[in-house]
Amino acid sequence: MFELDPAFDAGSRRLVSLPLCEARLQLDARYPWLILIPRVEAARELEDLSAQDRSRLFDELLLAGAAVRAMGEALDRPVAKLNIGLLGNVTPQLHAHVVGRRPDDAAWPGPVWGNGEAVAYAPRTLDLLTDAARSTLVSAARA
Amino acid sequence: MFELDPAFDAGSRRLVSLPLCEARLQLDARYPWLILIPRVEAARELEDLSAQDRSRLFDELLLAGAAVRAMGEALDRPVAKLNIGLLGNVTPQLHAHVVGRRPDDAAWPGPVWGNGEAVAYAPRTLDLLTDAARSTLVSAARA
Repeated sequence: MFELDPAFDAGSRRLVSLPLCEARLQLDARYPWLILIPRVEAARELEDLSAQDRSRLFDELLLAGAAVRAMGEALDRPVAKLNIGLLGNVTPQLHAHVVGRRPDDAAWPGPVWGNGEAVAYAPRTLDLLTDAARSTLVSAARA
Repeated sequence: MFELDPAFDAGSRRLVSLPLCEARLQLDARYPWLILIPRVEAARELEDLSAQDRSRLFDELLLAGAAVRAMGEALDRPVAKLNIGLLGNVTPQLHAHVVGRRPDDAAWPGPVWGNGEAVAYAPRTLDLLTDAARSTLVSAARA
């Protein structure tokens, strides 16, 4: 049975269940940042997914990229480059990060992972970005 | 026409041309590390690839993961976790990193990108790893 690692609860907020993945918003106001966690028991690496699920994950990575871009637009800070990472050194449950980057962001041009402490969102900003991300994810999932 | 960004020549060594990507070995003795660069003109983001090429890229990411594991075995340092990253903040030409990680490596549990300076390979080690990676990549490409 699939169970979400509790570490994701601490650092991110649930957005929506996509066909394969749980989509979550990372609670770090420095970057528009989504996490996708495939609902596949005991998966740690890409090779632990079936070919069909790998294809779904790729589709959902693209969708998450569009949602991250929508978050950037909602903040009037358009995304210049998407960064995608599957690391899992700290939390081994298979998950993918999709992060919107700009040359004026806190870590540019370095990676966001392991770079300083997360900055809390103002509640209004978090609601704005949750809406922007969710509407992109849900409208595509229904299409 | 596709042209490889010269930045890749400086930091990595050519291994083999896969159906979609140029596979290269990153010249950093701290980690077994491959780079895949799709031969698609002007591609910067996943969304710039066709659905067929995205599916090929996913296949080649798996293959690169197997090759990185083979590199770890050749060094008697088995890979504990694969890290995959598509960043492009410094070199925007679309490329994917596939890195073999261990809890005793130089950057664990942080990301390898932006972490200190690359360490040069001893020529013999580089040849050993080139052979290990290439034989995994080539045998699968022919299968």
